Amino acid sequence: MLVVMQHNATPEDIQRVVQTIEEMGYQARPMPGAQRTAVGLVGNDGRVDESRIAGLPGVKEIIHVTQPYKQVSREWKTENTVVQLPGGLSIGGTEIVVIAGPCSVESEAQILETARLVRQAGASILRGGAFKPRSSPYSFQGLGVKGLKLLAKAREETGLLIVTEAMDPEGVDLVAEYADIIQIGARNMQNFSLLKRAGKAGKPVLLKRGLAATITELLLSAEYLLAAGNHDVILCERGIRGFDSSTRNVFDVAAISVVHELSHLPIIADPSHATGRRDKVIPMARAAVAAGADGIMVEVHPAPDRALSDGAQSLYPEQFAELMKEIRVIAEAIHRRVADPIGSAAQV
Amino acid sequence: MLVVMQHNATPEDIQRVVQTIEEMGYQARPMPGAQRTAVGLVGNDGRVDESRIAGLPGVKEIIHVTQPYKQVSREWKTENTVVQLPGGLSIGGTEIVVIAGPCSVESEAQILETARLVRQAGASILRGGAFKPRSSPYSFQGLGVKGLKLLAKAREETGLLIVTEAMDPEGVDLVAEYADIIQIGARNMQNFSLLKRAGKAGKPVLLKRGLAATITELLLSAEYLLAAGNHDVILCERGIRGFDSSTRNVFDVAAISVVHELSHLPIIADPSHATGRRDKVIPMARAAVAAGADGIMVEVHPAPDRALSDGAQSLYPEQFAELMKEIRVIAEAIHRRVADPIGSAAQV
Amino acid sequence: MLVVMQHNATPEDIQRVVQTIEEMGYQARPMPGAQRTAVGLVGNDGRVDESRIAGLPGVKEIIHVTQPYKQVSREWKTENTVVQLPGGLSIGGTEIVVIAGPCSVESEAQILETARLVRQAGASILRGGAFKPRSSPYSFQGLGVKGLKLLAKAREETGLLIVTEAMDPEGVDLVAEYADIIQIGARNMQNFSLLKRAGKAGKPVLLKRGLAATITELLLSAEYLLAAGNHDVILCERGIRGFDSSTRNVFDVAAISVVHELSHLPIIADPSHATGRRDKVIPMARAAVAAGADGIMVEVHPAPDRALSDGAQSLYPEQFAELMKEIRVIAEAIHRRVADPIGSAAQV
Amino acid sequence: MLVVMQHNATPEDIQRVVQTIEEMGYQARPMPGAQRTAVGLVGNDGRVDESRIAGLPGVKEIIHVTQPYKQVSREWKTENTVVQLPGGLSIGGTEIVVIAGPCSVESEAQILETARLVRQAGASILRGGAFKPRSSPYSFQGLGVKGLKLLAKAREETGLLIVTEAMDPEGVDLVAEYADIIQIGARNMQNFSLLKRAGKAGKPVLLKRGLAATITELLLSAEYLLAAGNHDVILCERGIRGFDSSTRNVFDVAAISVVHELSHLPIIADPSHATGRRDKVIPMARAAVAAGADGIMVEVHPAPDRALSDGAQSLYPEQFAELMKEIRVIAEAIHRRVADPIGSAAQV
Repeated sequence: MLVVMQHNATPEDIQRVVQTIEEMGYQARPMPGAQRTAVGLVGNDGRVDESRIAGLPGVKEIIHVTQPYKQVSREWKTENTVVQLPGGLSIGGTEIVVIAGPCSVESEAQILETARLVRQAGASILRGGAFKPRSSPYSFQGLGVKGLKLLAKAREETGLLIVTEAMDPEGVDLVAEYADIIQIGARNMQNFSLLKRAGKAGKPVLLKRGLAATITELLLSAEYLLAAGNHDVILCERGIRGFDSSTRNVFDVAAISVVHELSHLPIIADPSHATGRRDKVIPMARAAVAAGADGIMVEVHPAPDRALSDGAQSLYPEQFAELMKEIRVIAEAIHRRVADPIGSAAQV
Repeated sequence: MLVVMQHNATPEDIQRVVQTIEEMGYQARPMPGAQRTAVGLVGNDGRVDESRIAGLPGVKEIIHVTQPYKQVSREWKTENTVVQLPGGLSIGGTEIVVIAGPCSVESEAQILETARLVRQAGASILRGGAFKPRSSPYSFQGLGVKGLKLLAKAREETGLLIVTEAMDPEGVDLVAEYADIIQIGARNMQNFSLLKRAGKAGKPVLLKRGLAATITELLLSAEYLLAAGNHDVILCERGIRGFDSSTRNVFDVAAISVVHELSHLPIIADPSHATGRRDKVIPMARAAVAAGADGIMVEVHPAPDRALSDGAQSLYPEQFAELMKEIRVIAEAIHRRVADPIGSAAQV
Repeated sequence: MLVVMQHNATPEDIQRVVQTIEEMGYQARPMPGAQRTAVGLVGNDGRVDESRIAGLPGVKEIIHVTQPYKQVSREWKTENTVVQLPGGLSIGGTEIVVIAGPCSVESEAQILETARLVRQAGASILRGGAFKPRSSPYSFQGLGVKGLKLLAKAREETGLLIVTEAMDPEGVDLVAEYADIIQIGARNMQNFSLLKRAGKAGKPVLLKRGLAATITELLLSAEYLLAAGNHDVILCERGIRGFDSSTRNVFDVAAISVVHELSHLPIIADPSHATGRRDKVIPMARAAVAAGADGIMVEVHPAPDRALSDGAQSLYPEQFAELMKEIRVIAEAIHRRVADPIGSAAQV
Repeated sequence: MLVVMQHNATPEDIQRVVQTIEEMGYQARPMPGAQRTAVGLVGNDGRVDESRIAGLPGVKEIIHVTQPYKQVSREWKTENTVVQLPGGLSIGGTEIVVIAGPCSVESEAQILETARLVRQAGASILRGGAFKPRSSPYSFQGLGVKGLKLLAKAREETGLLIVTEAMDPEGVDLVAEYADIIQIGARNMQNFSLLKRAGKAGKPVLLKRGLAATITELLLSAEYLLAAGNHDVILCERGIRGFDSSTRNVFDVAAISVVHELSHLPIIADPSHATGRRDKVIPMARAAVAAGADGIMVEVHPAPDRALSDGAQSLYPEQFAELMKEIRVIAEAIHRRVADPIGSAAQV
């Protein structure tokens, strides 16, 4: 950490900074420069509270040289984390995993039909919301536990693994009971009580980036999970807030590269929520794979115009099948391949 | 709601939209125009799920004519909501309420000293975090229930009312037991499980705007509270995410005016979190009052350079006293006045 | 255009809106609804100044049903614009065009060497700045006319076409004299005097999206060029301003899809300026091609660590050659191909 | 400048950075730390091109300790710049200057009537566009030179000073001939050819912040003016791009404080363009004064609903008169006063 002094800071100001740093248990190293002095803080273990220093007289700004997160960092662990899932599937290795399914679980017929369709096209994990975070209290809030049971039934019938969202600490335990992966949604990325519980749940966690979260904040939220003992964390870029209403959000495809540089954790992309319109989902799914995503998560519905939520962004089954073909070629261009569903003829 | 068709939409496309609207139980009213047709949906009760229509062939976009929220709207209730607090204090009327105190409750000495200092300068409500949402799992997370008890003690000694944050459903019950106002923090603005519990808590709620929340989303989150039966809601602008790192966030002072136009709920401003630097807090607190805020919430610490969190944005007690003098004059310019603390000589 | 009235608008308010619309020479069509009345303006030719109506008493908001641009719209012209360039090259058809070269023209040796290297790898157009827009007045501002002459020399020696930026109306004439494509930079996207001159310049124009420009604003700026008679316009996504400093800008890859939906004009992507770091340029170039870009523009320098500007984002020649191989495979996945340089054995 | 190395950078990587810094003519000072080494660049005169170093192997990031601007900095000149205008008026001292007038000059009757009305209410400078930057080529583009002559006539009749916008280098000379202050609009903040000409024009310049410009970029654009010899520069906050469509832009009122900290130049606020709606202009004008703005610029029109541009944000004359009363009281609260028009009884 570097404490930059104002150009007219007095020797007393500088001395006070040095002393405060030492009181906090670190070493201070003043560096006089042409225009101003900076004071280095050496020995930062990631627990320094900068605000105590930032407000001292003569301090211009605090500059961080090390990142505030630890265990999620690629500097902490060089090799990629490969999250192992049941049936030999994994996320974060050479294979690209495709997660597909409806926004919400609506009925047994709907979820079973979707599961069969997406498996046939090559998806290996089924998504579907049982507990739905909705901006309005008057929107459909999901089937709850009944939805979880229907997902489990779909897994039984198709061999697809299951991912679904938990919205509160108690929900984590329920979801962990039924699903293979617990999803933490974008709106809850900094719901720290939820993160702490998910860190203890004993199942892999899919952590979505918040709409206004920096990559550093996303990694710090993941750090909550690792700090609580859960190392099976998959990150997800799903669009950030922007100034243009042409698409629902801005799909920050470069976040995939940035995460891969800074962290060993896998990252997938959700082009459905990122764009909000079916005709944009397909090119953005391709872009995500080309950019190096470890997987994609796509909304597919057997009859999108009858969906109870997010119909406009759900692919028709035939569109999804076409997309699968395209991304298989793109994966080759970067020496990867799309994972086959568990138990398929193609799976080794 | 207006469904705008593409200019080359076929009569079948238009008919399908009409039929879907009617299936959903509303009336459809096609309006042919020079370049394209639009179809009005009449009878929207705020529960229409647009996504079912947005993805139909030939549909260009959906335009909302009515807002998705109801009870928080000024169209639902014309006169201002005035939240009544113990001791005759209220928020949302002519008087401007000043909330002050440290970021975190750190010790009995610290919270009692701060309480005395801010009451002396004219604050009427004490703030102080007992449960702290921190980006990093390694930062100080607050004193918890012990912090709540210290706040209650400070109320007993000074007559100041108490506001403090709840971070999860169980926390709501605890905070409701000790505090006069339950705070929902910016990161939890769309933690719907938390909102539902706070809607049943029987105490007024201070709901902070999320970093990337639109005003519509803020009002929809407030709608969760009203829909659950709690009408004593105070909104709070505390800065939104921006592209310039000159200040921590962008203080969206115009949000105060926008909320006053769209809703009957009171709105206060938190210039401390909005700017993150003490020297900016003072002019922004003045700006908030000049813009029409129903109150301000300011961090004050007896010794900011020893604070365990957010020291850089905490005012010195003498700065706070000076600020109080300035806002009293500004309040006059718009025919309002700063509320006096309960039991003060000035209070009638 | 739809004028939405407040729910408590009086019949007089509505009548005043109707009358104002009629005074402006359009038809007014009032539409009473459940909660409020809306007034349709029929016959909008794109020249309506909404602000005259927006401020009338009782008006809640103005909603645009038609876009404010005309000639750039896909509704105006359904088939894709294919910009024809010398030597049989074109942008906007099936082929994907690769533009490469240094940020700035620095010397004869540098530009000739780069030209040879990028042509060898398969680029068909050479980029290089002669007039440089720099945030600081103290930064290198380009070689000016001397730079234009060196670019022309590189074209002569390699057969590559030339694109370079013009910064002011006089500069347009100079650039048009030497280059095959005139570039308008992001900072000048709304420099309307510049756009008007470029619209008369008789050479194709590459118009870059401004850092905070919506797609609508980008298309309106393009409309300036078409309105002045120049239909050979190529758009370029080069990153928008965001809140995270992990990358220089946010690469808005979905803008490629959005432009293709709304307009018949071709759009390319510049991942170098979008990300600012070499290791991000490669995956983002791949993502752009996968998303459907009609071309990419990439900075390449023979010795990036000696570049006078933007060295950090310039690819090493061997990285560029590798990238060319990858995008050739990705192009296949979507039934396109990368254009070959003029005069190459591969070109038909 | 601080070059932060990756934690696994080799001694050769570090040596290469040191050598490159020395080749560039500066001193390099390696600083080994707990997790990584940083290399300080000493002697930075603001002309270092960081990108040459940023791309070297082993470099993680570049951190700036000094600002890239010089003459506009408060470190370069401690005391406030007070821009002297004809008739004894000035901007940047104790007095707060009010600029008012229509968006566009439309006719002699309109501009003369507006001038009289705003002077009567207490404005001292008249605004009005003669050359109008419009997003659409089909919108009213201003009266041009005829508009400049009408502004000059209004000055003659009322004693108000005149500010109006120049859009291109030739326009600067024309505007300088007629106006007292040359305005550079937000869209042209980084039109460097325009800035260079304005720097030579011999008249004060009002430089508006671009929609997506950081404060640093605003100051760098001002630096272009000072570097060209023009020290009479007034900055203007007029709203930045945001994600919420509730107001046209986000009024970044804190920018006023930030500029006052970093620079000696005066800064005013334009709440009309920042919000786009008349009912928001009034509270935002008050907020700007309370925040410490050196002036405000407000759109006033004698008949806003007949304005050719921006009618919705123009105040009615009686609203403006009421606003003047309010800001006079607010100015007092911070020991300032509103400047009186030249020649008024009140002016000393």
